[in-house]
Amino acid sequence: MIPKVEGPWDIHYADRLLAQLEAKAGLQRPILLHCVLETSQGVANLEEIASASPRIQGMSFGPADLAASRRMKTTRVGGGHPGYRTIADPDPENPDAPRPSYQQDPWHYSIARMVDACTSVGALPFYGPYGDISDEEGCETQFRASFLLGCVGAWSLHPAQIAIAKRVYSPDPDEVAFAKKVIEAIPDGRGVHMIDGKMQDDATWKQCQVMVKLAEMLARKDPELAEAYGFERTVEPAGAAA
Amino acid sequence: MIPKVEGPWDIHYADRLLAQLEAKAGLQRPILLHCVLETSQGVANLEEIASASPRIQGMSFGPADLAASRRMKTTRVGGGHPGYRTIADPDPENPDAPRPSYQQDPWHYSIARMVDACTSVGALPFYGPYGDISDEEGCETQFRASFLLGCVGAWSLHPAQIAIAKRVYSPDPDEVAFAKKVIEAIPDGRGVHMIDGKMQDDATWKQCQVMVKLAEMLARKDPELAEAYGFERTVEPAGAAA
Amino acid sequence: MIPKVEGPWDIHYADRLLAQLEAKAGLQRPILLHCVLETSQGVANLEEIASASPRIQGMSFGPADLAASRRMKTTRVGGGHPGYRTIADPDPENPDAPRPSYQQDPWHYSIARMVDACTSVGALPFYGPYGDISDEEGCETQFRASFLLGCVGAWSLHPAQIAIAKRVYSPDPDEVAFAKKVIEAIPDGRGVHMIDGKMQDDATWKQCQVMVKLAEMLARKDPELAEAYGFERTVEPAGAAA
Amino acid sequence: MIPKVEGPWDIHYADRLLAQLEAKAGLQRPILLHCVLETSQGVANLEEIASASPRIQGMSFGPADLAASRRMKTTRVGGGHPGYRTIADPDPENPDAPRPSYQQDPWHYSIARMVDACTSVGALPFYGPYGDISDEEGCETQFRASFLLGCVGAWSLHPAQIAIAKRVYSPDPDEVAFAKKVIEAIPDGRGVHMIDGKMQDDATWKQCQVMVKLAEMLARKDPELAEAYGFERTVEPAGAAA
Amino acid sequence: MIPKVEGPWDIHYADRLLAQLEAKAGLQRPILLHCVLETSQGVANLEEIASASPRIQGMSFGPADLAASRRMKTTRVGGGHPGYRTIADPDPENPDAPRPSYQQDPWHYSIARMVDACTSVGALPFYGPYGDISDEEGCETQFRASFLLGCVGAWSLHPAQIAIAKRVYSPDPDEVAFAKKVIEAIPDGRGVHMIDGKMQDDATWKQCQVMVKLAEMLARKDPELAEAYGFERTVEPAGAAA
Amino acid sequence: MIPKVEGPWDIHYADRLLAQLEAKAGLQRPILLHCVLETSQGVANLEEIASASPRIQGMSFGPADLAASRRMKTTRVGGGHPGYRTIADPDPENPDAPRPSYQQDPWHYSIARMVDACTSVGALPFYGPYGDISDEEGCETQFRASFLLGCVGAWSLHPAQIAIAKRVYSPDPDEVAFAKKVIEAIPDGRGVHMIDGKMQDDATWKQCQVMVKLAEMLARKDPELAEAYGFERTVEPAGAAA
Repeated sequence: MIPKVEGPWDIHYADRLLAQLEAKAGLQRPILLHCVLETSQGVANLEEIASASPRIQGMSFGPADLAASRRMKTTRVGGGHPGYRTIADPDPENPDAPRPSYQQDPWHYSIARMVDACTSVGALPFYGPYGDISDEEGCETQFRASFLLGCVGAWSLHPAQIAIAKRVYSPDPDEVAFAKKVIEAIPDGRGVHMIDGKMQDDATWKQCQVMVKLAEMLARKDPELAEAYGFERTVEPAGAAA
Repeated sequence: MIPKVEGPWDIHYADRLLAQLEAKAGLQRPILLHCVLETSQGVANLEEIASASPRIQGMSFGPADLAASRRMKTTRVGGGHPGYRTIADPDPENPDAPRPSYQQDPWHYSIARMVDACTSVGALPFYGPYGDISDEEGCETQFRASFLLGCVGAWSLHPAQIAIAKRVYSPDPDEVAFAKKVIEAIPDGRGVHMIDGKMQDDATWKQCQVMVKLAEMLARKDPELAEAYGFERTVEPAGAAA
Repeated sequence: MIPKVEGPWDIHYADRLLAQLEAKAGLQRPILLHCVLETSQGVANLEEIASASPRIQGMSFGPADLAASRRMKTTRVGGGHPGYRTIADPDPENPDAPRPSYQQDPWHYSIARMVDACTSVGALPFYGPYGDISDEEGCETQFRASFLLGCVGAWSLHPAQIAIAKRVYSPDPDEVAFAKKVIEAIPDGRGVHMIDGKMQDDATWKQCQVMVKLAEMLARKDPELAEAYGFERTVEPAGAAA
Repeated sequence: MIPKVEGPWDIHYADRLLAQLEAKAGLQRPILLHCVLETSQGVANLEEIASASPRIQGMSFGPADLAASRRMKTTRVGGGHPGYRTIADPDPENPDAPRPSYQQDPWHYSIARMVDACTSVGALPFYGPYGDISDEEGCETQFRASFLLGCVGAWSLHPAQIAIAKRVYSPDPDEVAFAKKVIEAIPDGRGVHMIDGKMQDDATWKQCQVMVKLAEMLARKDPELAEAYGFERTVEPAGAAA
Repeated sequence: MIPKVEGPWDIHYADRLLAQLEAKAGLQRPILLHCVLETSQGVANLEEIASASPRIQGMSFGPADLAASRRMKTTRVGGGHPGYRTIADPDPENPDAPRPSYQQDPWHYSIARMVDACTSVGALPFYGPYGDISDEEGCETQFRASFLLGCVGAWSLHPAQIAIAKRVYSPDPDEVAFAKKVIEAIPDGRGVHMIDGKMQDDATWKQCQVMVKLAEMLARKDPELAEAYGFERTVEPAGAAA
Repeated sequence: MIPKVEGPWDIHYADRLLAQLEAKAGLQRPILLHCVLETSQGVANLEEIASASPRIQGMSFGPADLAASRRMKTTRVGGGHPGYRTIADPDPENPDAPRPSYQQDPWHYSIARMVDACTSVGALPFYGPYGDISDEEGCETQFRASFLLGCVGAWSLHPAQIAIAKRVYSPDPDEVAFAKKVIEAIPDGRGVHMIDGKMQDDATWKQCQVMVKLAEMLARKDPELAEAYGFERTVEPAGAAA
């Protein structure tokens, strides 16, 4: 885990150092790197960092350091902030009525760009920590937002957050059921089909594969999930999960 | 239409192949290219793709392929997802009350960056398909979001969506009326003016031009819109529309 | 202030011209540049613009010009637009009920990327103008959104907006109080601590420093803020503020 | 003529300044630029300078400045230096005999790379000045070397050098006669032919075209050359030469 | 063999086309590419061309096309030109005596840069054709010059040139004998040794390996060379040569 | 001294490692780097290597390793090779007469490009070793060639070569005398002057400065040179030489 990665040069350095240590120790499998983005420069160089070395296993970001580096005006670690909102126009019928407003996600750009940078080179994007341990609902909302955008996990600062992460970073049983239905109806992933009023083709079929493969992988390790997803228990030989 | 464009190399290849075919066929007008972005790598290379060739007529994206490439955890084709939200802080007066939450747009970054890449080279950005044919309101919301951000159209998977696209990708008559008012008040686009309590200058004048020019172009083809926008019927010689 | 910056070449040109004028005039301190982004090409080249010269003091963007360049379908100068929304799924219990929808921030990507480009080179990001002078609540919402994302100020088109800017671009007294508490509890910024149920470490400590330093700087110039933040009045020698 | 060009930034600056002046003066034809390379950095950036603007008409180099910048140990302006030589191996039969040595061209790399950079963008490479006015034979040798490598002219510091330049930068009548023979034998430039024991094809045909076109252009302005090349006198309308 | 390669785009195009044809034909071994440089732009882009694809087997250049593209003033295909010379200073004792002059190699830069570009990616540099078939001595001189600089072969336009190429592109028996002596004296390539008054170390040992390996490879196919190099005849199984 | 530098990544790595060691040891002056180019890839990346870090003090090249990497067909370490020649055309009067031929410098491109890369960033170019210790004349020829092209020194493999280096890498007294004459005649380096029949201006004045400054620096350390250059003995305080 390399903290405060700011550009490809940080990865090149670690890459060479590890190559020397591996050669010395006679290692056969390369040591992988997990990058933590903690500065605005790191975000500005995201794509170059991701492609700096095949050692990159994944990335996550440190929302507190990143916020400080950007001078974002928040003391929170991840999550939204009540001050970042859009507001509805005044009601012309009743111009003095309170106007609805909508809280926005300050991390959308950062997470979306990190997901693209990672997945375009086959690395795994992770969300980072959520600082307010007492706010489990806020934590769950943040974790799920990152899951939807493509992250595969998060850091946990407290046992309560581990339970949240388990719940969030596994797909919803209803979506898994729907995905299985699509895959069963289109075994070879070809053609255009209508299923439950939604058009399905080779692209949605790939989405369903992402969903079901993840569910299968998790189900092999967690009997409760296996049941929730409706997978039969199978005896799995050791080491078979990817 | 080139699917799965991932980098400028894909455009260079098509560019050369077309040049040879055009030369063989003795064509005078160049064949143009429409790129479909379907992978995270394509988004990471957006600006380079847009400037890879003057043949680029426009771009759109395939939200299902793109979601699968990013491992976004959704089986929907475009649109929002109930799981991507921000949440309000607990009410200190009433900490156990349900907290309001706000659904977010998972496509904001992707669309905004594509619009910039396209318009910076004079190409046209399009939204892609909306998969849930039965959800006309969802489709309209997605189409309008892309319209606001700069897209000029979308794909239609069903006749019902054509009607939605017609409605959405034409500007609102009230905004057109306001834009006409600004242009009439500032014929040469110079100076700073107050109109309906809003400051208008050369920049807002350009916004109004975008609005009115689009309205005029659409009105020439659609008598209903012409009436809605208050344009008088004019006899237009064939081939005059841009 | 250089308007319509589109790429590093615009900065290089101004840089050289100023160098010649400075040499002619015998100036010792370099003249700085403030860039205004007003086109999609400028946004596509943000990072290169920011690092084109050490003269870059800061950036802001012109939302009206930028919207026109992108063909965003709005005649508003900054702020949200009622047409950019996400919508909730239909309620399965009551499919005909009106579905809640949530207005989105059309400027998220643009502001977030500008903040990164600026802060990665030590320059200051500013929001630009808000056009609807009569809508003070809308102005305040837009200014605060940019403040949260990292901007340090905005343009004012009217005295009423100056008051809003003063209120918005100074941190909330509650957050300042919390930040002071953290800094007092962790004088050296080391270790991991629980304060009010939230984990604090070197990263959150930096966030608190951003907050308190800004508050101190503002308090030195504004007795009301000094009182709100609970800073004792100190006699400050002229020129001490950074 | 821009002296001491070191990188594309110098060209960008001149380009913009001229564009403004041209606009002010209402000029229709663009003012062109001739770059003088006088530093090692300029040579290191040659290709980027050549493609920095379509205004680049040509380049030449200042051998004295360039030598000083490189710390070449010569006080001569252009030409060879007796100290830059290769030496033959000792004669094994007669190891104490003086060994032949061969003076080398210290400017080969610089001229060859400048010719490539220029001709790859359609600009004209020129040699620069030859400083030793009293050494006409040395001047002629240097000018001819540059002519052979692709330069189209040089600077003259003295009337005697103008006569040399005229003589050198016009092709040898024998080579022109041979080139005419090839072109007459292969009117369409196709196929492989043996002429005077040398293979001729589309490539050598192009070389002959370079030679004959240059001879024709010069002959139109110089009756002596016209006679030497065996071109009949033709009445040429004013302004016909390229 | 791809003629007139000017930049990496030419290689990318051929690369993709071949990939499609290979897939169609079910080929297992990739089709390799040999690039012919025939323009100044190709030389300016040499390093990028060499690293454009792992298909690059080697390069050669077309001296006639290249000369025409550079407007070099020669109608010869390869070889030197009597006009490209350096000249000695006048003899101060006898200033009117004829001054020695030395013919230079107009191709030095082009060949040397091509050799670097090729060998830095593991591709093979070849000289191209020598046009004057009747001048065997000139052909041999040109071929040997390219051999010394690193080329591994040339094109032959006539049977007489094949014999020359065989003679030139095999190392000199005396140098091979010396190289064998070095390798025998330093079996493991380590340490510093004096052999025949010349310092030998790991670097010269590598030079000797280049020499001996090439001699061995050629000797396996040519009994005369085997004898000249003093290699014993060995029975070689079919297909064993690299 | 870093051997086998192939690209900027090698310098970045050493740069970071040294920064850590310096910080650990509390060093105030940065440790500098001398790069040895020993592969064709290193030459292809010369300019990027030179500008990779301000630690670059200078460069030299290893002609034996470089030759092996390029597969140059020589077992010599530096110097020319009898096989790299140009040849004169046959004498038409006497076609069977032996044709003069001229040995060429195989290292011209490599040295010239290294000199440019170094001097454009203020680093010092050095020639490397000359392997044939018994051939003092060959060594002197090679050293002087590099001196003329801009190198400031070489490696010595034997005490005899130290004497050669001393003699070669100090400028010729005649050229120093001429340079002093120019500087005395043009104290401020301005204007155009004729001195000994050669034009002198600000550019040749700079050449003379290079020559005289080097002579002065050497003379301070070597009484014999001081006398040869005609500098009066001056008492120099310790440490005054740059």
